[in-house]
Amino acid sequence: MISDEEQQELAAVESPETKDVQEVPPLSIPDYVHELVTRARQAAGRLATLSTVVKNNALIAMADALDEKQTLLIEANEKDVDAFGTDPDKAAMADRLRLTEQRIADMSAGIREVAKLPDPLGDMPKMWTRPNGMQVGRVRVPIGVIGIIYESRPNVTADSAALCLKSGNACVLRGGSEAIHSNTAIAAVLAEAAEKAGIPPGAISFVDRPDRELVPVLLKQDRYIDVIIPRGGPSLMKTIAENATIPVVKHDAGICHIYVDADADQAMAEAICVNAKAQRPSTCNAMETLLVHQTIARTFLPRLMEKLQAANVEVRGCSRTCQLLPDAKPAADDDFGKEFLELVLAVRVVKNMDEAMEHIAKYGSQHTEAIITTNYQRAMRFLREVDAGAVLVNASTRLNDGYQFGLGAEIGISTSRIHARGPMGLEELTCSKFIVLGSGQIRE
Amino acid sequence: MISDEEQQELAAVESPETKDVQEVPPLSIPDYVHELVTRARQAAGRLATLSTVVKNNALIAMADALDEKQTLLIEANEKDVDAFGTDPDKAAMADRLRLTEQRIADMSAGIREVAKLPDPLGDMPKMWTRPNGMQVGRVRVPIGVIGIIYESRPNVTADSAALCLKSGNACVLRGGSEAIHSNTAIAAVLAEAAEKAGIPPGAISFVDRPDRELVPVLLKQDRYIDVIIPRGGPSLMKTIAENATIPVVKHDAGICHIYVDADADQAMAEAICVNAKAQRPSTCNAMETLLVHQTIARTFLPRLMEKLQAANVEVRGCSRTCQLLPDAKPAADDDFGKEFLELVLAVRVVKNMDEAMEHIAKYGSQHTEAIITTNYQRAMRFLREVDAGAVLVNASTRLNDGYQFGLGAEIGISTSRIHARGPMGLEELTCSKFIVLGSGQIRE
Repeated sequence: MISDEEQQELAAVESPETKDVQEVPPLSIPDYVHELVTRARQAAGRLATLSTVVKNNALIAMADALDEKQTLLIEANEKDVDAFGTDPDKAAMADRLRLTEQRIADMSAGIREVAKLPDPLGDMPKMWTRPNGMQVGRVRVPIGVIGIIYESRPNVTADSAALCLKSGNACVLRGGSEAIHSNTAIAAVLAEAAEKAGIPPGAISFVDRPDRELVPVLLKQDRYIDVIIPRGGPSLMKTIAENATIPVVKHDAGICHIYVDADADQAMAEAICVNAKAQRPSTCNAMETLLVHQTIARTFLPRLMEKLQAANVEVRGCSRTCQLLPDAKPAADDDFGKEFLELVLAVRVVKNMDEAMEHIAKYGSQHTEAIITTNYQRAMRFLREVDAGAVLVNASTRLNDGYQFGLGAEIGISTSRIHARGPMGLEELTCSKFIVLGSGQIRE
Repeated sequence: MISDEEQQELAAVESPETKDVQEVPPLSIPDYVHELVTRARQAAGRLATLSTVVKNNALIAMADALDEKQTLLIEANEKDVDAFGTDPDKAAMADRLRLTEQRIADMSAGIREVAKLPDPLGDMPKMWTRPNGMQVGRVRVPIGVIGIIYESRPNVTADSAALCLKSGNACVLRGGSEAIHSNTAIAAVLAEAAEKAGIPPGAISFVDRPDRELVPVLLKQDRYIDVIIPRGGPSLMKTIAENATIPVVKHDAGICHIYVDADADQAMAEAICVNAKAQRPSTCNAMETLLVHQTIARTFLPRLMEKLQAANVEVRGCSRTCQLLPDAKPAADDDFGKEFLELVLAVRVVKNMDEAMEHIAKYGSQHTEAIITTNYQRAMRFLREVDAGAVLVNASTRLNDGYQFGLGAEIGISTSRIHARGPMGLEELTCSKFIVLGSGQIRE
């Protein structure tokens, strides 16, 4: 029951270098995309009604397959890593990209975690009865086909495939060209294992061509793809804004602030600020700008500076900050509202909480905002008035995350205001349908 | 505290014909749109934190104002209706457009109903505590600025303004050019009443220029408008697909089916079919195609035909239908999958439920689908496997509606698969933010 096409795919997994030879002449880009999305669409119809047991078994088989094919995956990955050469400027990126035995084990463990999560489908929190006697309920169903366009590490391939499968959706994955060999190998291993476990072919569809001109074509497949989830930088977001005819749930920049209030527990504020900036600065929920109330700045900032320096954080301050911190650099105008994604922090002293909230409204990206305070009224007001996917009191911005919030694995953190906002887990990969149990009701 | 601009607006309400004179030279379209959406955006920030009492009082004031300004509204409406002339082909459209005292009273009653609905904002169904002690909750907040582009009767102006205001959103309304005088007058009356009641100016923003080239400009205001809700025909949908950079929640065609199973209560099936087709054929949830199981067709169809004929419904049947119904016209190929929106019904005899479900999957628009059956297993299978915003057993498709489902007033029936699917009430005009109550938690 294995088609020629799948046999080719299998052959490609075993020996990727033979692929180009077999595929002459290649399909045109529109034909290639059409074939891919048609197959995904067909898979989606069948996926929607698969039992949880079948899906979980497939997920476990996918995890096992990654573990078994470690050597193959590492070989494919070496091609991507080697392409970066020995340029020291690119060493960090090459390192992010690198697959090790441990990282592959983490990927497969992630898939096993998804298998353990409750199936979101079929959930119907309540049914209610209308005056005419008909019962109405809203049941959770898959969205259909989810397109994910990403520029991140190869683990996103495995995470996305697992989350889409568990939520009954087919996925069309398009990774960055810098990870094309790694992603192609991972996707092929996962798709093969899934199919052997009874998942329809096409359920895990991967764009194995790095051509840049393919993305605009993909973004217009609104008949076949129901939603696009982009994860990447400004140039990807621009391509999507200009080309997508498919609804988009964005995973865009996080320009996150912490406001340290006049009434703050200073030790707590220090610990949270260092964590929010330095624990993993490349993430979207890391703090980029610190706002400090003027009455606490004189005591708080110098002590914080010591800890930040110990963590190799460069501080760029407003003029008042620089008066208090001789080691701080003066902030440029565009340092406020910038997503540094590295060990750099903009710091501004503010008159009061209103000024802090105005700053956040002006410069923030409505991703994650936090206040550190012991004052009840100001905590409540900050929670109510600050507009962001997540607003925290006395906690690190780094905690805005699906696992940390207890939602299970996440596909990312949505910066959209429709469909899903904040961490996007299995439930956010579904939609609903109303069902009505009637006994002959008509509209009067 | 009334600005010059508002005074002009007020003057325009009192005597619309003076407006053109005052507004020479008019703003360019981009400038006009920019001014409108900027004002709406500013209003949105303040609207989000208004109390329920202020919003409800404003809604009641808006309803009162419509009642008080009946004469003015009817005068404005006459200009629109007169523009249709005496062409009998357009009589139905002109009639749909016409405002009467009764229709204005219905609009104001609709707004009062919205005032009575619970405020969806601030709702937080649960908070949960994570192992590290932080408490996490998801609270309902407004989307922000909602753009509504419609081609429907003028009551949509009042309904949309009321629903957006109640849910804490600013709205930018763009009605059809055929109703420009009516809609402009309604929107001005509503906006004036709302402002007097403490609602920020711009909260109810109306595009009072009929220029067609304005719509593509509006559809690119993604910095100011958070979501576009289009309600209209294929040409509007095409414009939106081609131009929108703003997320869209579509209100598209309803190609709705009823499948009458072999085991159906025939009297119930008759009553439901007549209701679904003829009670109000111009709506998106009216039945367009009837599918009848072959074993019941011989007895069921002739009896149904009598009732359909009594209701002036024209039947276009497949060849087997035409054998059973001498009065039926043969259906053309494209009659299946067509949204007639009038007293025309396509009828097909099917071998079994599988054939019916295949037909629905192929020709339906995933809007509203119903089965009439006394068989439990087939009812459950139809509910599970048919993919639509609403799937009904033994009830008329006309019941797929926000009021009928008990959701309160609706802005329309979404045919999107993301954000909202099916009837879209107050809750669907909101999004969420996570809030975290911490006590010093950091990411480990």
